[in-house]
Amino acid sequence: MNEFRIEKDSLGEVRVPVDAWYGAQTARAVDNFPISGRRPDKDFVLAHVRIKLAAARANCQPGWLPEAKRDAIAAACEQILGGEHLDQFVVDRFQAGAGTSHNMNSNEVIANLANVALGGEKGTYKPVNPNDDVNMGQSTNDTIPTAIRLAVLAKLPRLVAAVHAMAAEFSRLAEREKDTVKSGRTHLQDAVPTTLGQEFAGYAWTLTRCAASLDAVRPALCEIGLGGSAAGTGLNTSPDYPPRVATELAKLTGEPIRVGQLVAQMQSMNDLARLSGEIRNLALELTRISNDLRLLASGPRTGLGEIQLPPVQPGSSIMPGKVNPVMFEMLNQVCFQVLGQDAAVSYMVQAGQLELNVMMPALGSALFDAMDWLTNAMNAATEKNLKGIVVNRERCAFFIHQSVALATLLNTQIGYNQAAEVAKESEKSGRPVRDIVAERGLMNAADFDALVLQAAHGIGSGGGGG
Amino acid sequence: MNEFRIEKDSLGEVRVPVDAWYGAQTARAVDNFPISGRRPDKDFVLAHVRIKLAAARANCQPGWLPEAKRDAIAAACEQILGGEHLDQFVVDRFQAGAGTSHNMNSNEVIANLANVALGGEKGTYKPVNPNDDVNMGQSTNDTIPTAIRLAVLAKLPRLVAAVHAMAAEFSRLAEREKDTVKSGRTHLQDAVPTTLGQEFAGYAWTLTRCAASLDAVRPALCEIGLGGSAAGTGLNTSPDYPPRVATELAKLTGEPIRVGQLVAQMQSMNDLARLSGEIRNLALELTRISNDLRLLASGPRTGLGEIQLPPVQPGSSIMPGKVNPVMFEMLNQVCFQVLGQDAAVSYMVQAGQLELNVMMPALGSALFDAMDWLTNAMNAATEKNLKGIVVNRERCAFFIHQSVALATLLNTQIGYNQAAEVAKESEKSGRPVRDIVAERGLMNAADFDALVLQAAHGIGSGGGGG
Amino acid sequence: MNEFRIEKDSLGEVRVPVDAWYGAQTARAVDNFPISGRRPDKDFVLAHVRIKLAAARANCQPGWLPEAKRDAIAAACEQILGGEHLDQFVVDRFQAGAGTSHNMNSNEVIANLANVALGGEKGTYKPVNPNDDVNMGQSTNDTIPTAIRLAVLAKLPRLVAAVHAMAAEFSRLAEREKDTVKSGRTHLQDAVPTTLGQEFAGYAWTLTRCAASLDAVRPALCEIGLGGSAAGTGLNTSPDYPPRVATELAKLTGEPIRVGQLVAQMQSMNDLARLSGEIRNLALELTRISNDLRLLASGPRTGLGEIQLPPVQPGSSIMPGKVNPVMFEMLNQVCFQVLGQDAAVSYMVQAGQLELNVMMPALGSALFDAMDWLTNAMNAATEKNLKGIVVNRERCAFFIHQSVALATLLNTQIGYNQAAEVAKESEKSGRPVRDIVAERGLMNAADFDALVLQAAHGIGSGGGGG
Amino acid sequence: MNEFRIEKDSLGEVRVPVDAWYGAQTARAVDNFPISGRRPDKDFVLAHVRIKLAAARANCQPGWLPEAKRDAIAAACEQILGGEHLDQFVVDRFQAGAGTSHNMNSNEVIANLANVALGGEKGTYKPVNPNDDVNMGQSTNDTIPTAIRLAVLAKLPRLVAAVHAMAAEFSRLAEREKDTVKSGRTHLQDAVPTTLGQEFAGYAWTLTRCAASLDAVRPALCEIGLGGSAAGTGLNTSPDYPPRVATELAKLTGEPIRVGQLVAQMQSMNDLARLSGEIRNLALELTRISNDLRLLASGPRTGLGEIQLPPVQPGSSIMPGKVNPVMFEMLNQVCFQVLGQDAAVSYMVQAGQLELNVMMPALGSALFDAMDWLTNAMNAATEKNLKGIVVNRERCAFFIHQSVALATLLNTQIGYNQAAEVAKESEKSGRPVRDIVAERGLMNAADFDALVLQAAHGIGSGGGGG
Repeated sequence: MNEFRIEKDSLGEVRVPVDAWYGAQTARAVDNFPISGRRPDKDFVLAHVRIKLAAARANCQPGWLPEAKRDAIAAACEQILGGEHLDQFVVDRFQAGAGTSHNMNSNEVIANLANVALGGEKGTYKPVNPNDDVNMGQSTNDTIPTAIRLAVLAKLPRLVAAVHAMAAEFSRLAEREKDTVKSGRTHLQDAVPTTLGQEFAGYAWTLTRCAASLDAVRPALCEIGLGGSAAGTGLNTSPDYPPRVATELAKLTGEPIRVGQLVAQMQSMNDLARLSGEIRNLALELTRISNDLRLLASGPRTGLGEIQLPPVQPGSSIMPGKVNPVMFEMLNQVCFQVLGQDAAVSYMVQAGQLELNVMMPALGSALFDAMDWLTNAMNAATEKNLKGIVVNRERCAFFIHQSVALATLLNTQIGYNQAAEVAKESEKSGRPVRDIVAERGLMNAADFDALVLQAAHGIGSGGGGG
Repeated sequence: MNEFRIEKDSLGEVRVPVDAWYGAQTARAVDNFPISGRRPDKDFVLAHVRIKLAAARANCQPGWLPEAKRDAIAAACEQILGGEHLDQFVVDRFQAGAGTSHNMNSNEVIANLANVALGGEKGTYKPVNPNDDVNMGQSTNDTIPTAIRLAVLAKLPRLVAAVHAMAAEFSRLAEREKDTVKSGRTHLQDAVPTTLGQEFAGYAWTLTRCAASLDAVRPALCEIGLGGSAAGTGLNTSPDYPPRVATELAKLTGEPIRVGQLVAQMQSMNDLARLSGEIRNLALELTRISNDLRLLASGPRTGLGEIQLPPVQPGSSIMPGKVNPVMFEMLNQVCFQVLGQDAAVSYMVQAGQLELNVMMPALGSALFDAMDWLTNAMNAATEKNLKGIVVNRERCAFFIHQSVALATLLNTQIGYNQAAEVAKESEKSGRPVRDIVAERGLMNAADFDALVLQAAHGIGSGGGGG
Repeated sequence: MNEFRIEKDSLGEVRVPVDAWYGAQTARAVDNFPISGRRPDKDFVLAHVRIKLAAARANCQPGWLPEAKRDAIAAACEQILGGEHLDQFVVDRFQAGAGTSHNMNSNEVIANLANVALGGEKGTYKPVNPNDDVNMGQSTNDTIPTAIRLAVLAKLPRLVAAVHAMAAEFSRLAEREKDTVKSGRTHLQDAVPTTLGQEFAGYAWTLTRCAASLDAVRPALCEIGLGGSAAGTGLNTSPDYPPRVATELAKLTGEPIRVGQLVAQMQSMNDLARLSGEIRNLALELTRISNDLRLLASGPRTGLGEIQLPPVQPGSSIMPGKVNPVMFEMLNQVCFQVLGQDAAVSYMVQAGQLELNVMMPALGSALFDAMDWLTNAMNAATEKNLKGIVVNRERCAFFIHQSVALATLLNTQIGYNQAAEVAKESEKSGRPVRDIVAERGLMNAADFDALVLQAAHGIGSGGGGG
Repeated sequence: MNEFRIEKDSLGEVRVPVDAWYGAQTARAVDNFPISGRRPDKDFVLAHVRIKLAAARANCQPGWLPEAKRDAIAAACEQILGGEHLDQFVVDRFQAGAGTSHNMNSNEVIANLANVALGGEKGTYKPVNPNDDVNMGQSTNDTIPTAIRLAVLAKLPRLVAAVHAMAAEFSRLAEREKDTVKSGRTHLQDAVPTTLGQEFAGYAWTLTRCAASLDAVRPALCEIGLGGSAAGTGLNTSPDYPPRVATELAKLTGEPIRVGQLVAQMQSMNDLARLSGEIRNLALELTRISNDLRLLASGPRTGLGEIQLPPVQPGSSIMPGKVNPVMFEMLNQVCFQVLGQDAAVSYMVQAGQLELNVMMPALGSALFDAMDWLTNAMNAATEKNLKGIVVNRERCAFFIHQSVALATLLNTQIGYNQAAEVAKESEKSGRPVRDIVAERGLMNAADFDALVLQAAHGIGSGGGGG
């Protein structure tokens, strides 16, 4: 039988599965890195192939890549970009520093596809050579960080859309619940009146700001280091290659790709740190908001119970009738893992040494997962839960009238110290502030209720003082 | 056509793939959680099934589980433990808080297997009911944390073995290189003589200590909360169930499983935090050691070049002949991701609320990945690289004779201040300390060389002073 | 005027404040490092001086340190250990890598004190020389990590005592409230009955385990690298110096100090990472417990209100009568900063290079702060708040009777699915489970109440099934 | 004797030091929080007083604060802003959640100063009341987050200036060393030629970008929540108070302060998370750059030795003549602590609950320290070290001619595979690539040297290919 073919690289002979479109160096990498069993991110695979395509086009100039090779390489790339042969990208997420193995995986697959299309055979690497032709003017050191940038640029709109979708839903709910007066809680203690609408509007506002912060990283991510070649100096590249390849990539991606500072692009992962930081910032807010929703939905009988999250599955294998806030618990979990990804990214970003950061493959992978998982989690939470949120307005009303903090509304009328005495009496006796106020002749109940409503609606309330 | 069957749970009807051994609640969960696309860890799946088997045996007592049901449940569990139907565990790693979905996935698969074996049909849940029988005396809240413990107990020996294997290799190298005198470097600056053997012995010693620290968490991990049921109070369990189920699990796992403090087992993930912390501590040392090896192997011409890591693949897509320390770069990357996993675990551990920590599914998953990936990475680095390390003894010797720090050897003879002058002269002139010492009549070259050797070998050297 | 004296070191002349007991190198360091304005930790200062004292005693042997010098050095050290001249330790927490500046600060202060006592003058360094005599057989590289170990060994019993004190208080409360039946809450949703005593017992148990985990690091911390000198090889030390100095230090500290693996002691900060990790694990539990207490104390009217934390100060500058759980909010804040310290320590631990970890001064400082702050915070929270906790038993009773989750108690009688229907009816109608059960003829109210009590008390409850 | 005066608040009598300008609630807080012994950040103290001043001015309108009180409050504030009484701000950094204690400390000091100036006595709080007058229209919940914003706005320009100063120095060095050809190193292995100028230009570029990223957070930080009062609803404030107080603060600070979304300002610490994230990103780059500088300066004899960092103090207490890169080691340490601060901030940001984040005091403190320490550390490193950097050009030249990676320059002439053979021969024989190339008749030595120079200078080099 003939399950393997023999290929040769600078270290000697390698057995490659006979059907594989990849070659010797990929096969070595598969053997070297049996770590996570996880193959590369799809957006990253496609981004790297897009670079190969753009490079072939940019290199097609006198004295560089001939048209015939360009066409063969381009055809191979387009096949992959069309969705074929994605199973040929087989190197583990944890692999050679800087991603040499993935770069060679792309180079080998494309070369083999091109050569076979030109009538040749797999593993011969003629006429199209993986290093000299497919990798012309490139190196691992400039294609891998660029591919990471293109991959996150592909993912970013999906993440931002998920944030906007959730924010939009909170805005809709805020509008709907703008008259749902409820007790504010600060320090988890009874505080002055507010509305559920205001709480939700706050969430919407913050999420929208997070989306803007994420978008603000895009311009930096559109700067690429292609043309830098092995150390940012552009060795073995045509002088006009950098702008040409940027232009081609801009066409292929629809993004305003442009040439960055080539040395810094290789030394520094700062732009990716910024992106990771903004994702982290979003995850921190989502953690808080999920916690809030789960707290507001606590009960139904022994908790706050001001809202109810729609049930999506039975809540317990033992407690009948129990329904748990599983969608936001899931979002909480994803957020925490995203914070872990950011911690990993941070360690990797600081680990660059001299001309290169060899942690890139894992750095990219950590970011990709963070983005995909958070996007999916937000969308699921919005669709399955947020859209169907039910508000228990009686419960909100019940709490507000119980709250001792209503005494605060009296500050501007009678001063902090006297208001404190009303509060103290309410606390001791358990009687509503409204009744005590009326009894003391400070304000009748109707006026007091009006004051509460006005206070809950926020700015515009208030009154004399001093 | 008939691709789906209809099942019913407390929320209504659900479509379940007709061939699936799982049921309604699993199907809901698959629909609810399209997040990472990653299925549960295999050790965790098996651990959870082992719990179901142990529980069935423990529950088989008058008034509880009849023998026929026990046998049917046991047979189903043993099939799965034998490796069958593992593709039926399908709920995403990010799922319902606390893992209700995974618990029901196990309950449903086992119930369906049992009922079909008894001549029934999938989806009917008779005579064996997933909740009443398979889950008898259990809940998500006690089986999931216990399954996490059993899964990490299964992984821990593999991780510890990987640490010992790497430590053993460093010990072997330390012995081999015990006479390889070289320049110590502190602050990355030339320092007093040492041997490569001592450096490697230090690594071996530290790794061995890390292995011991990991092992020291085992006893705590063997404490389980089974019997606590839904809130640690043991509701709906037979009074002697906890010790019985612990005994059964001990038999099934070979570990000294015993009953822990049931409430704390549910409230607190402290034991898992400790495990994660020790894995983190190991990753920190491996990061340092990998960095050191890569630095010692730097060059070959423009770096330290004291050691050479065996090439496992061509190093560059553009620089011919380049060989990179990819195995330890890979280990570096895995370590950083492991640090990220630990950060995620930390966030999850602190997020318990009242009777339960709902972050458990993601917490377990983060730990499982950290353990598997680190185990694989260490083994690959040891086998592919450490075992073949080559030492450049001439390079070591060259550096030591160049080092200005040799002046330190004179401290006890001529005092720090005079020794400093020798050092300063060597630094300015570029001449070896040995020559200056001889010239100044302080010591002849042969004596000086002997002093260097003695110093490098450590304790036992020294001399008069004061 | 004569505010400064001129001293000289290998880099030239330095102005030293005329009254200062420290000398040139300390003065340089003060000038070099105007970073945080924070002086060194007191336990660390004392620990380092103890090392100097122990070393002087250990070095007093023929051919090494003469008795007269030993006595002068010892007298100076004892003055400092008695509390004098602590203001002479002036180098910023962020300073020379590895702590050379602090080591020289100690050496200079002790030498000057010794020489002045012997009739000499500050700044002359005769007869006692800071490097040749006070630092004899030592180096920054072995005294600083040893001083860090001694400092944390001094702090550790205080921290552990604070943990035990808090645990003891929870145990006392657990005993007191062992019959306070309340609703359990899992996923923050109504769950099966428990008691406040069980919740508090869980906290006590976990804290006690944390204390044990902290204590378990002590033996490793008692291993020291003194005798390793500059690179772990023991250059310029007397052969029997290591055991002698360890013995002296054991006498001075009362700890079973012993010689560790000298090279690893310098390369690796693993023991400190372990300590930091266990402190982190404690902080994670305290975060959770503080969050729980603040949640249980939420209200008083619009939250759970099951407990009341004693007021220690007015809660609001604007809301009269408001009382906030400030002691546990403070503990929460300290815990989060402690988690930050641990993150900093982690980064520093992995940053060792070859023979040395130069991050030690900041690493030590981060740990010292974490330990002191957490100790103080726990003690304040225990004393000011935990001891005076008030339980609202009516509130607990009110909630338990409201809870739909009581339906779970029926599982073993009527099966999960029928119990689920009772739950659903209770949920829809708002009527207590007890009434529905009675109405359906399943159990009378008195029996049901007895069942609740039994269930809340935990294991031992239960009943027939199957 | 009469060391204390007795004051009263809603909880009863309190002893206050007789000389203290602060009052009862501050005294309680001092007693409650003996945690770190660290007093509040000075910029924060001043910022909070500026808010009090602005509020007094904004509140001076009919029905609110009378002019006489405004003037008295303003005079007190201006005294403090002039540097007086700063020792009266005495509450520990870890204190009441949300900072109530600090808010009351300001209120009390200002009220007492105002009343004494008006002829009254300390502790009487007449005519100016701390709550009703000094705190009019304010609350802890809006003044503390605003004060944190103002404090970081004060610190930010100092931090950004430090970044620019370091970047400017790297730019100057980059220009000076633009012709210093040296070996690039990727994976720490010999790589293609570059120049020291390019490396330094990369650092300058990245730091400049970090400065821009920091500056980009300023607009968000200028949005404040004053007017939100206790829960963002503006209770007890005059309707036009928010814009008025923002205008006053803009005048006082010179920053374009404006009113933000009041509810979100209180719920969310997202803007501070972003700032912390950008500081973190800077610290990651500084870590990398410091590591690089220390590596390039390693040696002088047993390391790379391409640069020399000016000695600022003797390097070792035992190794004479040793000089260590202490300034960048210090910067490394500060960066790691800054990463710890950011981790702490992250935990605190996600811990907001409902209307408030009670972690603010510690959150602010963590940020303040990070900013101050990093500013000081960068300035010290730039001034004491970067400005005096010495380049060892012979060493750079020596390495480049040794490097096997020069074979890469032949790729475009002879293809990757043939170039690899030259590389292999150079590696085996130890002979320079230049000689082998000449010997094989591929290129003469002079042409090869020219090629190296051209390659090192980067883009524009290259040549035919393919």
